Amino acid sequence: MVTINENYLKLSGGYLFTEIGQKVAKFKAENPEASVISLGIGDVTKPLPPTVIKSLHQAVDEMAQPETFRGYGPEVGYDFLINKIIEAEYRSRGIELETDEVFISDGSNCDTSNIQEIFGIENVVAVTDPVYPVYVESNVMAGRGGDLNSLGGFERIVYLSCKAENGFVPELPRQRVDIIYLCYPNNPTGTTLSKTELKKWVDYARENQSVILYDAAYEAFIKEEGVPHSIYEIEGAMEVAIEFRSFSKTAGFTGTRCAYTVVPKRVVGYTRQGTIVSLNQLWNRRQTTKFNGVSYIVQRGAAAIYTREGQRQIRELIDYYMTNASIIREGLMRMGFQVFGGVNAPYVWFKIPGGMDSWTFFDKLLREAHVVGTPGAGFGPSGEGYCRLTAFNTRENTIKAVERIECRLKLCERNSN
Amino acid sequence: MVTINENYLKLSGGYLFTEIGQKVAKFKAENPEASVISLGIGDVTKPLPPTVIKSLHQAVDEMAQPETFRGYGPEVGYDFLINKIIEAEYRSRGIELETDEVFISDGSNCDTSNIQEIFGIENVVAVTDPVYPVYVESNVMAGRGGDLNSLGGFERIVYLSCKAENGFVPELPRQRVDIIYLCYPNNPTGTTLSKTELKKWVDYARENQSVILYDAAYEAFIKEEGVPHSIYEIEGAMEVAIEFRSFSKTAGFTGTRCAYTVVPKRVVGYTRQGTIVSLNQLWNRRQTTKFNGVSYIVQRGAAAIYTREGQRQIRELIDYYMTNASIIREGLMRMGFQVFGGVNAPYVWFKIPGGMDSWTFFDKLLREAHVVGTPGAGFGPSGEGYCRLTAFNTRENTIKAVERIECRLKLCERNSN
Repeated sequence: MVTINENYLKLSGGYLFTEIGQKVAKFKAENPEASVISLGIGDVTKPLPPTVIKSLHQAVDEMAQPETFRGYGPEVGYDFLINKIIEAEYRSRGIELETDEVFISDGSNCDTSNIQEIFGIENVVAVTDPVYPVYVESNVMAGRGGDLNSLGGFERIVYLSCKAENGFVPELPRQRVDIIYLCYPNNPTGTTLSKTELKKWVDYARENQSVILYDAAYEAFIKEEGVPHSIYEIEGAMEVAIEFRSFSKTAGFTGTRCAYTVVPKRVVGYTRQGTIVSLNQLWNRRQTTKFNGVSYIVQRGAAAIYTREGQRQIRELIDYYMTNASIIREGLMRMGFQVFGGVNAPYVWFKIPGGMDSWTFFDKLLREAHVVGTPGAGFGPSGEGYCRLTAFNTRENTIKAVERIECRLKLCERNSN
Repeated sequence: MVTINENYLKLSGGYLFTEIGQKVAKFKAENPEASVISLGIGDVTKPLPPTVIKSLHQAVDEMAQPETFRGYGPEVGYDFLINKIIEAEYRSRGIELETDEVFISDGSNCDTSNIQEIFGIENVVAVTDPVYPVYVESNVMAGRGGDLNSLGGFERIVYLSCKAENGFVPELPRQRVDIIYLCYPNNPTGTTLSKTELKKWVDYARENQSVILYDAAYEAFIKEEGVPHSIYEIEGAMEVAIEFRSFSKTAGFTGTRCAYTVVPKRVVGYTRQGTIVSLNQLWNRRQTTKFNGVSYIVQRGAAAIYTREGQRQIRELIDYYMTNASIIREGLMRMGFQVFGGVNAPYVWFKIPGGMDSWTFFDKLLREAHVVGTPGAGFGPSGEGYCRLTAFNTRENTIKAVERIECRLKLCERNSN
């Protein structure tokens, strides 16, 4: 009898954004006249930059000729892309990496989901809370979650609460943890950590022989000076941290698919008997066995953003979205909401007034303002009572959405709930 | 202390083709004058068909305009591609599938590696031997392998020996197995199973509540009548089989990356307590959580092969490679080798004479003929004493490689070893 992986049964029915999609589809079917604006999922709307388009076309043409056709590439990515990443993203900040410390992939979703495979099942996982659901769910699927508890969290996972009360700065855990997921600029709260705060985590990991899985998918959105773009800006991080980066939001690649993961050779794990093993070597074995590399065409497209023209064009994209973020942020503040994020990240996180729960508010926002947000509770227990809006829609829709929230949302009704 | 997944330490140092690549690179460095011909890895060499190129360009242009730009697509693939697959690959053979039974991915390598995640660790896995290494290694990584035994196999995996002696037809296992990997047309042996032989496996799976993971990546290469293209041609298979298909070899997509997996809703697994669970639902949960879909551009490229022109062009590609296969097959037979495959598959499998082991023969072939093959032992214990050559090089190189084997390989020395 073939048995299933019963850990899957511990998960809720669907992935958060699939669930939201279904709710929105149902609302649209019942209200065909409503023009719904989505500030829900973090998906870009601006087309790919012209330099990327040009490079994609060139690569397609290469695939049409026997002399330039490419079959299987290196599973871990082409050097032409890896070397540009190292130069532009790391060396420029004084961080030295070798070519075989950077792994190209088809998305940070996949990498942050798959990375847990190289670790033992017995590790204790810590996540900031609220959190991008994939970190938790991939660990639950693998058996590191335990059962769901009454707070909507998993009993074996350590949730590091981030709320307005602590300024969204997670405290070091009281119990020992082995694997720590950090995401800064943060999804969903849009907040950042200072170098001093981040250093506490690096020091913790070094003292406890833990590993930090650092998701920096939104680093390109940082506007303020002094906010770390890479965890490797912190002394000692090269020994304890793996960093995830993506072209999805930076260059509009959500539907094109390209990302990369940095696993320095000095980052290690241990056998149960205490033997040191390089995580770079394990991840390399995982990727060269279970993955066959990103489309050559797509890697060429990604490399184009590292031209001078490419850099200018993605800067424009990011500025466009960050202006949207300001519009949302300032609009909500004007309406009296308690607002966070939106300064160094394309996410605005706000407190739902009147103690309403976040799924109820989601429904209300959709029903009254025809605006799709993401209920904070979908990101974990500490997300309850908050809502996330994203800056990725068009300027026009963003302005319209803020106006609708201001004019149509029945605040008094909300307060009385 | 962060512990690693110690199952990784049970694997040999590198993935088979990475190892071969390193050996070839070393030989080339030491013999810069040698023009090495690779009939080793199963990688295509002909450019993408013109219809695919045209469609890729169009999709790139769509990504350049806000009106037609695509962000996140459905994680499981776009309907425009899924529906064409169902129509052309299945309905045409009398097999009915629903849209949500087909999952688009970036490669059968990934899918055949990842599918084991939805099953319990306690399942007993059976593979035909020799076998595509990924089936075994992905299960070893997950903990279903046990230790390496003295024969070069893993003690918890059931190897179904396929050799010249049994006509490469695997016997039903004597012990109960839960998950059975079958690959037909077979990689590496190039052999096929008749409908009657395949039906035995479907019946076995139905009787034992097992699941068949059927890799049909090479079905487009079948030339003979009566050989099953899909396992769903067999009565009852819709209840027990998952099928993997790929555009890699069919349409030259090894460097472009697109494949699909069929998980009929009627295929089930069981909890340890015997509750029935749909594997379609589990795979859907896995893919929508841990994967973010294939590049829109690539999916448009893949869909183009389902036009009349596209079908004609891929047929030409396949015929070209299959003529290469005949050249290799007939050349080796003329030289007196015992040869298999190469009729319904782009792989030719032959017995190494004189009892030489397959890695020694690999070195000899490289050193004397400057031809890269794949040592049979790399595919499992029963591959020892065999060698695989692939039909994916150019016509010119294929002819040259066969001539070199005939003229330069020292058969007498080989026999005396």
